[in-house]
Amino acid sequence: PANKKLLVLPGDGIGPEVMGEVRRVIDWMAHRRSLSFEIEEALVGGIAIDAVGSPCPDETVAKARAADAVLFGSVGGPKWDSLPFEQRPELGILRLRKDLGLFANLRPALVMDPLVEASSLKANIVRGVDIMVVRETVGGVYFGEPRGVETLPDGRRRGFDTQVYVEDEIARVARVAFDLARKRRNKVTSVEKANVMQSGRLWRAVVGEVHKAEYPDVELENMYADNCAMQLCSRPKQFDVILGDNLFGDVLSDLAAALTGSLGMLPSATLGAVDATTGKRHALYEPIHGSAPDIAGKGIANPCAQMLSFAMLLRWSFGLEEDARLLETAIEKVLAGGLRTADIMQPGMARIGTSVMGEAVVREL
Amino acid sequence: PANKKLLVLPGDGIGPEVMGEVRRVIDWMAHRRSLSFEIEEALVGGIAIDAVGSPCPDETVAKARAADAVLFGSVGGPKWDSLPFEQRPELGILRLRKDLGLFANLRPALVMDPLVEASSLKANIVRGVDIMVVRETVGGVYFGEPRGVETLPDGRRRGFDTQVYVEDEIARVARVAFDLARKRRNKVTSVEKANVMQSGRLWRAVVGEVHKAEYPDVELENMYADNCAMQLCSRPKQFDVILGDNLFGDVLSDLAAALTGSLGMLPSATLGAVDATTGKRHALYEPIHGSAPDIAGKGIANPCAQMLSFAMLLRWSFGLEEDARLLETAIEKVLAGGLRTADIMQPGMARIGTSVMGEAVVREL
Ligand SMILES: CC(C)[C@H](C(=O)O)[C@@H](O)C(=O)O
Ligand SMILES: CC(C)[C@H](C(=O)O)[C@@H](O)C(=O)O
Repeated sequence: PANKKLLVLPGDGIGPEVMGEVRRVIDWMAHRRSLSFEIEEALVGGIAIDAVGSPCPDETVAKARAADAVLFGSVGGPKWDSLPFEQRPELGILRLRKDLGLFANLRPALVMDPLVEASSLKANIVRGVDIMVVRETVGGVYFGEPRGVETLPDGRRRGFDTQVYVEDEIARVARVAFDLARKRRNKVTSVEKANVMQSGRLWRAVVGEVHKAEYPDVELENMYADNCAMQLCSRPKQFDVILGDNLFGDVLSDLAAALTGSLGMLPSATLGAVDATTGKRHALYEPIHGSAPDIAGKGIANPCAQMLSFAMLLRWSFGLEEDARLLETAIEKVLAGGLRTADIMQPGMARIGTSVMGEAVVREL
Repeated sequence: PANKKLLVLPGDGIGPEVMGEVRRVIDWMAHRRSLSFEIEEALVGGIAIDAVGSPCPDETVAKARAADAVLFGSVGGPKWDSLPFEQRPELGILRLRKDLGLFANLRPALVMDPLVEASSLKANIVRGVDIMVVRETVGGVYFGEPRGVETLPDGRRRGFDTQVYVEDEIARVARVAFDLARKRRNKVTSVEKANVMQSGRLWRAVVGEVHKAEYPDVELENMYADNCAMQLCSRPKQFDVILGDNLFGDVLSDLAAALTGSLGMLPSATLGAVDATTGKRHALYEPIHGSAPDIAGKGIANPCAQMLSFAMLLRWSFGLEEDARLLETAIEKVLAGGLRTADIMQPGMARIGTSVMGEAVVREL
C-alpha cells in the first residue's frame, strides 16, 4: 500500500521519553519489516501552550486530519494547572477527539500473566481478567450545551453542564462495542444510571434496540454505573466488553485499568467513523497513563503502554496484524524474562529504566 | 428527654427481614437501657406501589417529616423494573431525600479487622481502611432541570439532563465533610471533573473558599473523579473523608464500600440542615446494600448493616453515643467470635442466618 502517514504528538511530561522508545521500534520495523511510514510531529498540550499559546493549534488539527493515524503521548502538568478552563493542556486531547469525530475510545484492561502480582487485588480475582471498555468520547456532559458558571440575580454563582445524547450517537458507539464482543467473549455490559437520568433511560433503550435488531447473538447486560464500579472491584472476571458514555466511561475505564495494577502497560485507541467516500477512518492511539510529571525526565517511565498503543495502531489503522502481534509478543517476552520498570517492579525481578526497556524490546524483536 | 419519634420504613426485598432484627435490638434497649421510642411504620418502594400506587405516598412523607429520625430498609426488585421512570420504587428514596432536604449522605467504608479477608483486595492494601464518603444528595444531575427525552424535528430522540449546583449547595455539604474530618484524620479529598465540567470548576472553587475561610486547619486535596476511582482501588489507605457531588458520590461511595468486601456490614446516614427555629435536623439511616431480591425471604441476609444504621441513628439523631457504641461493639464481638452470614463467610467460621445473627447480637448486648 501507499505510504502511510503517521502523526506523532509526544506532548508533555513523560510523553516525549516514552515516544522516543516507539521511534526505535519504528526504525526497526522500517529496516527489518520494510514498513515505511511518513512520520510528522506536532505540538499538543502544555508544550503547545508555551510555544504558540494554544493547547491544540490549528496546525496540529490539520496535520491530524491529513494523517492516517495519530500516535499521542500525554498532556498536562503542574505548570499549566492554574490556567483558566479554556486554555488547559487537556483541551488538546478534547479538541482532537471532537474535531476528528473520534467517538469510540477502546480501552483494554488486560492482566498479563507475569504481572498478576502487580495488582492490588488478590491473584485469584484478577488472573485472566481481559476487559475492553468502550467509551463514547465526543458527546455527553463533556460537550453538552448550555454550560457555564453564571451569577444569579441574588449574587450567588451557579455552575451547570448539560448531559445530552441523541440516539444515533448512542447507536454508533454501541455498534463498536457489539462488533468487538463478537471477536471476544460475546458479551456487552452497557452502563448508565437509567434509574435517575433521562439520558441514561434513552441510552438503555437505544442500546437495547441496536442489540435486538443487529446483534441478537451477543449477550447484552444493562448495569447501573454504581453497581458496575462495585462489580469491577469485587468480580472483574464477569466482564468482557463494557460500554459507557463519556463520563461513566471515563471513570470506569480508569477503574478497570487500575485493577490490573499495571497502568504503565495499558494502551488505548480512539476511533472515528469510516468515511463513506474515502473509506478512511480517523484514529488516535494513546497510553492510558497520564503525563506523570513527578517522574518526567528521570528516564524511569515505562514505555510499554506507548509501544502497545503503537501496536494497536498497526492493527487497527494499518491492518498490520502480524506486525502488531510481533511487537506485543516481544513485550510479553521481555516481561516474562524478568525485566521491570519501577512502576511494575516485583521482588526478584531486574529493575530497569525507560531506554533499557526500549532496547530490550527491540532486541527481542 | 421527651419520647423520640422513629419512623421505620422496611421497604422491599430483604428490607423487612433485616429490619426485624433491629426491632429486637430496640426491644432490648427499651427494657435494659430504658430507652423508649415512639415507633411508627410506613410504606415505601415497590410495596407502596402495590398497596397505594405510589413509591412514596404523601402519608409516608408526612410521617417522615414528623419523625425525629427515619430508619430505612431498601427498595426495588424485578417486579417493578419495567415500570415507567416516574413510578419506580427508587423514587421512594429520592423523594424522601429531596422533600426532607437530606443533602449530606455519609457513607463509611470501614474494614473491620475480622473481615479483612472478605475483601477482593490484598490484606495489606485494605487492613485499616477507614474512609468516610460524604455525598451531596439533593442536587446535581439527579434533579437538575431541564431534563427529559424529546423528539427532534427530524424524528431522532434526544435525552438530556442538567448537572447544576449553586454555590451554597456546595458550601453546606463541604462543611459537613470538613467537620467530620476534624473528628477523624483531618483530611478531605474533594472529587470532581473540574477539567471538563463547569459545575466541577465551581465545585472546586467553592470547596476551596470554604476551606480557606473556615477550615484552614484541615488538609484539603482536590482530585479528579477518574483518578479517585483508580486510587481507591490501588491505595485506599490514603483517604480519610472523600467529598463528592450526587453522581460522583454515588459511584465512588459504592466503590469504597465494595473494596471492604463486606457490603452487608455497611450503614449510611443522610442528614438535612439544622432547623434554625426548632433545632431539629431531619435524618434518614439506611444500609448500603440494596433490596437483594435474589436472597429475599430466605432468612440468610446479613442484618448487621441495618443494625449499624440504627447505631448511627442513635448517635447522630438521638445523641446516644454510649448506646450506639454498645451496639457496634456487640456486633464486632459476634464477628470476632466466628459467626458469619453467607455474604461474609470465610473458611473456619460458623455460617448462620439472619435471625441467628440478630439473636447473637442481642445476647452479646
Ligand atoms: C485529560 C482528560 C480531559 C481526559 C478525560 O477526562 O477524558 C482523561 O481523563 C482521559 O480519560 O482521557
Ligand atoms: C436507588 C438509587 C436511586 C440510589 C441512587 O442512585 O442514589 C442508590 O444507588 C443509592 O446510592 O442510594
